Amino acid sequence: MQVSIIKIGGNIIDDEARLAAFLDTFSAVPGKKILVHGGGKLATKVAEGLGVQQQMVDGRRITDGETLKIVTMVYAGTINKNIVAGLQARGCDAIGLTGADGNAILSHKRTHASIDYGYVGDVDMVNSSLLTSLLLLDKTLVFAPITHDGKGLLLNTNADTIAQELARGLSASFEVSLVYSFEKSGVLLNAEDESSVIGRIHPVYYEQLKASGAIFAGMIPKLDNAFAALRSGVARVIIGKAEELPNLLSGISGTTITHA
Amino acid sequence: MQVSIIKIGGNIIDDEARLAAFLDTFSAVPGKKILVHGGGKLATKVAEGLGVQQQMVDGRRITDGETLKIVTMVYAGTINKNIVAGLQARGCDAIGLTGADGNAILSHKRTHASIDYGYVGDVDMVNSSLLTSLLLLDKTLVFAPITHDGKGLLLNTNADTIAQELARGLSASFEVSLVYSFEKSGVLLNAEDESSVIGRIHPVYYEQLKASGAIFAGMIPKLDNAFAALRSGVARVIIGKAEELPNLLSGISGTTITHA
Repeated sequence: MQVSIIKIGGNIIDDEARLAAFLDTFSAVPGKKILVHGGGKLATKVAEGLGVQQQMVDGRRITDGETLKIVTMVYAGTINKNIVAGLQARGCDAIGLTGADGNAILSHKRTHASIDYGYVGDVDMVNSSLLTSLLLLDKTLVFAPITHDGKGLLLNTNADTIAQELARGLSASFEVSLVYSFEKSGVLLNAEDESSVIGRIHPVYYEQLKASGAIFAGMIPKLDNAFAALRSGVARVIIGKAEELPNLLSGISGTTITHA
Repeated sequence: MQVSIIKIGGNIIDDEARLAAFLDTFSAVPGKKILVHGGGKLATKVAEGLGVQQQMVDGRRITDGETLKIVTMVYAGTINKNIVAGLQARGCDAIGLTGADGNAILSHKRTHASIDYGYVGDVDMVNSSLLTSLLLLDKTLVFAPITHDGKGLLLNTNADTIAQELARGLSASFEVSLVYSFEKSGVLLNAEDESSVIGRIHPVYYEQLKASGAIFAGMIPKLDNAFAALRSGVARVIIGKAEELPNLLSGISGTTITHA
């Protein structure tokens, strides 16, 4: 059985018209599917409104206690429930979840030698039995980037990581396509030319691309992650514009990263 | 098969120690169960923080667009997810839901001849097939008082009403006990005397109590609602202190309202 796991980021969530267009496209995708959404700018706006200072270290938000309350409200409340209601309105039977719901994703509070990231979770376990049960009930799952530690603590968790861990966790029972929505049309041979999308990358070709310096350095961590996902059992990772979702899944648009 | 549906209000949610004690008790209740929580004071606090004026008419909050955003954040985000994480920490496998999730509760925006309540939902339909599926997966359901209209709109909805509609919706397939947590030990013969709890009320006795003026007038709408629930198929309605939950369900504490 197949499942598509699609991650969207703040650029779509923050733009009402783009989000509506994406939900049209997503709801039309056939088969079993999971949407993972990031946070977007609303949390920052609410934090400013409430006078909670946002502390950033190396471009990452430090999740102190007050910030955890805000991201829980905004990610699991506002964003998640509006996406679910929007999908229901489009005939897509969605259920919104955090990692705490049904113990879907268990994590632990990150420990770091020099930086205290605060209430940030690193994933330990995905409850694939729960996810499988819900998918077999023909529910579409919508994940907010919040997990829990099993001891009552909610934890702010990177949405890319959640998508990847869900993909890994389901790969034993499903043929998983993992889609990362991206601001470009795919992995480009020439960063300035949207028409230079590389349609397919497999391990040998990836080594050639890296050796020749043909790939923009910023793409390398993303591609390394994609190959790590493949090694953990995911069938394919697709990078491209969320608006082109059906074509991404069929391989017509975007970049598909595969075993061979 | 039996299911217990328990509604708790703001007095418990607003008090961290009482909520923790309640979750201890609730997680220990055997069998299938659903928790419905109200809102509490946090939404008002967040609204104040964000400078959103709260308009009250006849003691009811008017849910304008900005207030809807806040109650969605606070009820479906903060409160719901903290309760779910707290139950998971106690070994109770909870899933948090709004009416939008899985199209669990469909409502319509209230229309009223003279008052515009704003984004307030009156319930049209409970999706008992979804609820039954989740209960059969041995999940405990935790409902936030938010529903949807099926057209993409979330709606603020009275938690007592949600509890009652869930109880009605499940009564065809389950033997339903509906518990309303209350600040007193139950329905009292003497409002000043906590030891004067009436253990059991059936329709004939209720008529006698009303005729003799023995019941505090404020209890009459609650009891009328309880009898309406019984007429729609609910097995019993129980009113009492949430802290005494196991004894409420076994009939040792509180007031049980039954058919005979």
